[in-house]
Amino acid sequence: MKHTKAILLQNESGALTRVASMFSTRGYNIDSLSVAPTDNPSISRLTLVTEGSDEVIGQITKQLYKLIDVIDVLNISQHDHIERELMMIKLKANDDKEDNIKTVLYDYSATIVNDKDRLLIIEVMANPLKNDNLLEALSAMSTLVAVARTGPLALAKGDLKINL
Amino acid sequence: MKHTKAILLQNESGALTRVASMFSTRGYNIDSLSVAPTDNPSISRLTLVTEGSDEVIGQITKQLYKLIDVIDVLNISQHDHIERELMMIKLKANDDKEDNIKTVLYDYSATIVNDKDRLLIIEVMANPLKNDNLLEALSAMSTLVAVARTGPLALAKGDLKINL
Repeated sequence: MKHTKAILLQNESGALTRVASMFSTRGYNIDSLSVAPTDNPSISRLTLVTEGSDEVIGQITKQLYKLIDVIDVLNISQHDHIERELMMIKLKANDDKEDNIKTVLYDYSATIVNDKDRLLIIEVMANPLKNDNLLEALSAMSTLVAVARTGPLALAKGDLKINL
Repeated sequence: MKHTKAILLQNESGALTRVASMFSTRGYNIDSLSVAPTDNPSISRLTLVTEGSDEVIGQITKQLYKLIDVIDVLNISQHDHIERELMMIKLKANDDKEDNIKTVLYDYSATIVNDKDRLLIIEVMANPLKNDNLLEALSAMSTLVAVARTGPLALAKGDLKINL
Protein backbone atom coordinates (compact mmCIF):
# COMPACT_ATOMS: atom_id res chain seq x y z
CA MET A 1 0.00 0.00 0.00
CA LYS A 2 1.19 3.52 -0.81
CA HIS A 3 1.84 5.92 2.05
CA THR A 4 2.47 9.65 1.95
CA LYS A 5 4.89 10.91 4.58
CA ALA A 6 5.68 14.49 5.56
CA ILE A 7 9.05 15.19 7.18
CA LEU A 8 10.28 18.43 8.71
CA LEU A 9 14.05 18.63 8.52
CA GLN A 10 16.82 21.09 9.24
CA ASN A 11 17.82 22.78 6.01
CA GLU A 12 21.42 21.54 6.31
CA SER A 13 23.81 20.49 3.59
CA GLY A 14 23.52 16.72 3.19
CA ALA A 15 20.13 16.40 4.92
CA LEU A 16 18.39 15.18 1.75
CA THR A 17 21.26 12.79 1.04
CA ARG A 18 20.92 11.27 4.53
CA VAL A 19 17.15 10.77 4.10
CA ALA A 20 17.44 9.31 0.58
CA SER A 21 20.36 7.13 1.62
CA MET A 22 18.45 5.67 4.60
CA PHE A 23 15.76 4.53 2.13
CA SER A 24 18.11 3.08 -0.47
CA THR A 25 20.49 1.28 1.92
CA ARG A 26 17.57 -0.41 3.69
CA GLY A 27 15.79 -1.27 0.44
CA TYR A 28 12.77 0.99 1.01
CA ASN A 29 11.38 2.47 -2.17
CA ILE A 30 10.70 6.18 -2.85
CA ASP A 31 7.96 6.63 -5.48
CA SER A 32 8.11 10.41 -5.53
CA LEU A 33 9.60 13.17 -3.40
CA SER A 34 9.35 16.94 -3.07
CA VAL A 35 11.39 19.12 -0.74
CA ALA A 36 11.58 22.90 -0.31
CA PRO A 37 12.07 25.39 2.52
CA THR A 38 9.03 26.30 4.64
CA ASP A 39 8.25 29.86 5.77
CA ASN A 40 11.26 29.35 8.08
CA PRO A 41 14.26 29.20 5.69
CA SER A 42 16.23 27.01 8.14
CA ILE A 43 13.55 24.29 8.02
CA SER A 44 12.50 22.31 4.94
CA ARG A 45 9.41 20.19 4.49
CA LEU A 46 9.84 16.99 2.54
CA THR A 47 6.89 14.98 1.23
CA LEU A 48 7.46 11.50 -0.09
CA VAL A 49 5.44 8.51 -1.22
CA THR A 50 6.64 5.05 -0.30
CA GLU A 51 5.15 1.58 -0.45
CA GLY A 52 5.00 -1.09 2.21
CA SER A 53 3.05 -2.83 4.97
CA ASP A 54 2.08 -0.91 8.10
CA GLU A 55 5.03 -2.59 9.81
CA VAL A 56 7.52 -1.38 7.22
CA ILE A 57 6.06 2.14 7.37
CA GLY A 58 6.52 2.11 11.14
CA GLN A 59 10.14 1.03 10.74
CA ILE A 60 10.77 3.83 8.24
CA THR A 61 9.41 6.39 10.70
CA LYS A 62 11.66 5.04 13.45
CA GLN A 63 14.72 5.18 11.19
CA LEU A 64 13.87 8.72 10.07
CA TYR A 65 13.75 9.96 13.66
CA LYS A 66 17.29 8.61 14.14
CA LEU A 67 18.61 10.99 11.46
CA ILE A 68 20.22 14.09 12.89
CA ASP A 69 18.39 16.56 10.63
CA VAL A 70 14.88 15.16 11.10
CA ILE A 71 12.64 17.27 13.37
CA ASP A 72 9.27 15.57 12.87
CA VAL A 73 7.67 12.85 10.79
CA LEU A 74 3.99 12.38 10.03
CA ASN A 75 2.39 9.52 8.14
CA ILE A 76 -0.18 11.75 6.48
CA SER A 77 -2.04 8.79 4.94
CA GLN A 78 -3.20 7.78 8.44
CA HIS A 79 -5.00 11.12 8.88
CA ASP A 80 -7.86 12.83 7.15
CA HIS A 81 -5.91 14.93 4.66
CA ILE A 82 -5.75 16.88 1.40
CA GLU A 83 -3.37 15.70 -1.32
CA ARG A 84 -2.44 17.66 -4.45
CA GLU A 85 0.08 17.14 -7.21
CA LEU A 86 1.34 19.53 -9.86
CA MET A 87 1.89 18.06 -13.33
CA MET A 88 3.24 19.73 -16.47
CA ILE A 89 3.14 18.07 -19.87
CA LYS A 90 4.64 18.98 -23.25
CA LEU A 91 2.94 17.20 -26.12
CA LYS A 92 2.31 17.21 -29.84
CA ALA A 93 -1.32 16.66 -30.75
CA ASN A 94 -2.05 13.86 -33.21
CA ASP A 95 -3.60 15.00 -36.51
CA ASP A 96 -7.13 16.37 -36.03
CA LYS A 97 -7.01 15.65 -32.29
CA GLU A 98 -6.55 19.16 -30.96
CA ASP A 99 -10.27 19.62 -30.25
CA ASN A 100 -10.46 16.27 -28.45
CA ILE A 101 -7.48 17.28 -26.35
CA LYS A 102 -9.17 20.55 -25.38
CA THR A 103 -12.29 18.65 -24.32
CA VAL A 104 -10.18 16.38 -22.09
CA LEU A 105 -8.29 19.35 -20.62
CA TYR A 106 -11.56 21.08 -19.84
CA ASP A 107 -12.87 17.97 -18.04
CA TYR A 108 -9.71 17.83 -15.90
CA SER A 109 -9.46 21.60 -15.25
CA ALA A 110 -6.08 21.57 -17.00
CA THR A 111 -4.75 24.57 -18.92
CA ILE A 112 -2.64 25.13 -22.03
CA VAL A 113 0.02 27.67 -21.01
CA ASN A 114 2.19 27.66 -24.13
CA ASP A 115 2.02 26.68 -27.80
CA LYS A 116 5.32 26.90 -29.71
CA ASP A 117 6.53 24.75 -32.64
CA ARG A 118 3.12 23.02 -32.43
CA LEU A 119 4.09 21.70 -28.99
CA LEU A 120 1.58 22.43 -26.24
CA ILE A 121 2.60 22.90 -22.60
CA ILE A 122 -0.16 21.93 -20.18
CA GLU A 123 -0.36 22.53 -16.43
CA VAL A 124 -2.70 20.92 -13.93
CA MET A 125 -3.02 20.63 -10.15
CA ALA A 126 -5.10 17.68 -8.91
CA ASN A 127 -4.87 14.54 -6.85
CA PRO A 128 -2.27 12.11 -8.28
CA LEU A 129 -4.83 9.50 -9.41
CA LYS A 130 -6.67 12.10 -11.46
CA ASN A 131 -3.35 13.16 -12.99
CA ASP A 132 -2.66 9.50 -13.90
CA ASN A 133 -6.01 9.36 -15.70
CA LEU A 134 -5.41 12.63 -17.53
CA LEU A 135 -1.99 11.43 -18.69
CA GLU A 136 -3.49 8.19 -20.01
CA ALA A 137 -6.26 10.06 -21.85
CA LEU A 138 -3.76 12.47 -23.45
CA SER A 139 -1.33 9.73 -24.48
CA ALA A 140 -4.10 8.23 -26.64
CA MET A 141 -4.40 11.40 -28.75
CA SER A 142 -0.90 12.88 -28.76
CA THR A 143 2.83 12.25 -28.56
CA LEU A 144 4.06 13.06 -25.06
CA VAL A 145 7.39 14.91 -25.34
CA ALA A 146 7.95 15.68 -21.65
CA VAL A 147 6.12 14.87 -18.42
CA ALA A 148 7.08 16.55 -15.13
CA ARG A 149 5.32 15.73 -11.87
CA THR A 150 5.97 16.79 -8.30
CA GLY A 151 4.40 13.78 -6.63
CA PRO A 152 1.81 14.74 -4.02
CA LEU A 153 2.02 17.41 -1.37
CA ALA A 154 -0.23 16.58 1.57
CA LEU A 155 -1.59 18.42 4.60
CA ALA A 156 -3.61 16.80 7.39
CA LYS A 157 -6.89 18.56 8.11
CA GLY A 158 -7.43 20.40 11.36
CA ASP A 159 -5.37 20.67 14.53
CA LEU A 160 -2.86 17.86 15.11
CA LYS A 161 -0.79 19.51 17.87
CA ILE A 162 2.12 19.06 15.48
CA ASN A 163 3.06 21.49 12.72
CA LEU A 164 2.58 19.05 9.87
CA MET B 1 22.23 33.15 -9.34
CA LYS B 2 19.51 30.51 -9.09
CA HIS B 3 19.27 27.86 -11.80
CA THR B 4 16.54 25.34 -12.46
CA LYS B 5 17.78 22.02 -13.79
CA ALA B 6 15.74 19.13 -15.19
CA ILE B 7 17.27 15.65 -15.06
CA LEU B 8 15.94 12.46 -16.64
CA LEU B 9 17.12 9.44 -14.69
CA GLN B 10 16.61 5.71 -14.60
CA ASN B 11 14.06 4.88 -11.92
CA GLU B 12 16.55 2.68 -10.06
CA SER B 13 16.95 2.15 -6.32
CA GLY B 14 19.58 4.58 -5.09
CA ALA B 15 19.39 6.93 -8.09
CA LEU B 16 18.12 9.85 -5.99
CA THR B 17 20.75 9.15 -3.32
CA ARG B 18 23.51 9.28 -5.94
CA VAL B 19 22.27 12.62 -7.31
CA ALA B 20 21.80 14.18 -3.86
CA SER B 21 25.13 12.82 -2.68
CA MET B 22 27.00 14.29 -5.65
CA PHE B 23 25.65 17.72 -4.62
CA SER B 24 26.42 17.41 -0.89
CA THR B 25 29.90 15.88 -1.20
CA ARG B 26 30.98 18.62 -3.63
CA GLY B 27 29.40 21.40 -1.59
CA TYR B 28 26.77 22.34 -4.19
CA ASN B 29 23.50 23.49 -2.67
CA ILE B 30 20.00 22.17 -3.47
CA ASP B 31 17.33 24.80 -2.77
CA SER B 32 14.39 22.60 -3.72
CA LEU B 33 13.85 19.31 -5.52
CA SER B 34 10.95 17.32 -6.97
CA VAL B 35 11.16 13.86 -8.48
CA ALA B 36 8.49 11.49 -9.80
CA PRO B 37 8.12 8.95 -12.60
CA THR B 38 7.30 10.21 -16.11
CA ASP B 39 4.77 8.53 -18.41
CA ASN B 40 7.44 5.81 -18.69
CA PRO B 41 7.54 4.20 -15.21
CA SER B 42 11.20 3.20 -15.64
CA ILE B 43 12.25 6.85 -16.10
CA SER B 44 11.88 9.62 -13.51
CA ARG B 45 12.14 13.34 -14.05
CA LEU B 46 13.88 15.33 -11.36
CA THR B 47 13.68 19.13 -11.18
CA LEU B 48 15.97 20.99 -8.84
CA VAL B 49 17.00 24.54 -8.07
CA THR B 50 20.62 25.26 -7.27
CA GLU B 51 22.68 28.39 -6.92
CA GLY B 52 26.04 29.25 -8.42
CA SER B 53 28.03 30.96 -11.17
CA ASP B 54 27.70 29.76 -14.76
CA GLU B 55 31.00 27.93 -14.25
CA VAL B 56 29.69 26.02 -11.23
CA ILE B 57 26.46 25.18 -13.05
CA GLY B 58 28.51 23.80 -15.94
CA GLN B 59 30.54 21.65 -13.51
CA ILE B 60 27.35 20.30 -11.92
CA THR B 61 26.02 19.27 -15.33
CA LYS B 62 29.30 17.48 -16.12
CA GLN B 63 29.23 15.63 -12.79
CA LEU B 64 25.58 14.66 -13.26
CA TYR B 65 26.34 13.06 -16.64
CA LYS B 66 28.97 10.89 -14.91
CA LEU B 67 26.29 9.29 -12.72
CA ILE B 68 25.16 5.90 -13.99
CA ASP B 69 21.41 6.60 -13.70
CA VAL B 70 21.43 9.99 -15.43
CA ILE B 71 20.04 9.96 -18.97
CA ASP B 72 19.85 13.67 -19.78
CA VAL B 73 20.35 17.03 -18.07
CA LEU B 74 18.96 20.37 -19.13
CA ASN B 75 19.66 23.74 -17.54
CA ILE B 76 16.11 24.98 -18.08
CA SER B 77 16.98 28.51 -16.88
CA GLN B 78 19.05 29.00 -20.05
CA HIS B 79 15.98 28.43 -22.24
CA ASP B 80 12.70 30.21 -22.72
CA HIS B 81 10.56 28.23 -20.30
CA ILE B 82 7.48 27.93 -18.07
CA GLU B 83 7.98 27.48 -14.34
CA ARG B 84 5.24 26.55 -11.85
CA GLU B 85 5.25 25.62 -8.18
CA LEU B 86 2.54 24.06 -6.05
CA MET B 87 2.21 25.41 -2.51
CA MET B 88 -0.15 24.31 0.28
CA ILE B 89 -0.56 26.26 3.51
CA LYS B 90 -2.38 25.52 6.76
CA LEU B 91 -3.03 28.65 8.80
CA LYS B 92 -5.11 30.18 11.53
CA ALA B 93 -6.50 33.58 10.65
CA ASN B 94 -5.79 36.40 13.10
CA ASP B 95 -8.91 37.90 14.72
CA ASP B 96 -11.08 39.77 12.22
CA LYS B 97 -8.62 39.04 9.41
CA GLU B 98 -10.55 36.34 7.52
CA ASP B 99 -11.96 38.81 4.98
CA ASN B 100 -8.52 40.33 4.36
CA ILE B 101 -7.16 36.82 3.81
CA LYS B 102 -9.87 36.07 1.25
CA THR B 103 -9.03 39.27 -0.63
CA VAL B 104 -5.37 38.26 -0.79
CA LEU B 105 -6.24 34.72 -1.90
CA TYR B 106 -8.46 36.10 -4.64
CA ASP B 107 -5.62 38.33 -5.88
CA TYR B 108 -3.26 35.34 -6.05
CA SER B 109 -5.80 32.86 -7.52
CA ALA B 110 -5.37 30.73 -4.40
CA THR B 111 -8.16 28.57 -3.00
CA ILE B 112 -9.34 27.48 0.45
CA VAL B 113 -9.82 23.70 0.20
CA ASN B 114 -10.53 22.89 3.86
CA ASP B 115 -11.63 24.60 7.05
CA LYS B 116 -11.50 22.42 10.18
CA ASP B 117 -10.79 23.47 13.80
CA ARG B 118 -10.62 27.05 12.45
CA LEU B 119 -7.53 26.04 10.46
CA LEU B 120 -7.69 26.84 6.75
CA ILE B 121 -5.90 24.77 4.12
CA ILE B 122 -4.98 26.77 1.04
CA GLU B 123 -3.68 25.57 -2.33
CA VAL B 124 -2.08 27.60 -5.08
CA MET B 125 -0.11 26.95 -8.26
CA ALA B 126 2.02 29.87 -9.48
CA ASN B 127 5.59 30.85 -10.18
CA PRO B 128 7.77 30.56 -7.06
CA LEU B 129 8.29 34.33 -6.64
CA LYS B 130 4.55 34.90 -6.61
CA ASN B 131 4.23 32.14 -4.00
CA ASP B 132 6.90 33.88 -1.88
CA ASN B 133 4.86 37.09 -2.01
CA LEU B 134 1.62 35.32 -1.12
CA LEU B 135 3.27 33.65 1.85
CA GLU B 136 4.60 36.98 3.09
CA ALA B 137 1.18 38.62 2.74
CA LEU B 138 -0.55 35.78 4.61
CA SER B 139 2.01 35.68 7.43
CA ALA B 140 1.07 39.28 8.27
CA MET B 141 -2.57 38.35 8.95
CA SER B 142 -2.41 34.78 10.27
CA THR B 143 -0.39 32.16 12.14
CA LEU B 144 1.16 29.76 9.63
CA VAL B 145 0.82 26.21 10.98
CA ALA B 146 2.25 24.30 8.01
CA VAL B 147 3.78 25.29 4.67
CA ALA B 148 4.45 22.68 1.97
CA ARG B 149 6.04 23.61 -1.36
CA THR B 150 7.20 21.52 -4.28
CA GLY B 151 9.79 23.93 -5.58
CA PRO B 152 9.35 24.70 -9.27
CA LEU B 153 8.65 22.32 -12.10
CA ALA B 154 9.88 23.71 -15.41
CA LEU B 155 9.42 22.93 -19.09
CA ALA B 156 11.32 24.62 -21.93
CA LYS B 157 9.05 26.02 -24.64
CA GLY B 158 9.01 24.50 -28.11
CA ASP B 159 11.14 21.86 -29.79
CA LEU B 160 14.60 21.29 -28.23
CA LYS B 161 15.45 17.98 -29.96
CA ILE B 162 15.72 16.59 -26.44
CA ASN B 163 12.82 15.29 -24.37
CA LEU B 164 13.13 17.80 -21.53
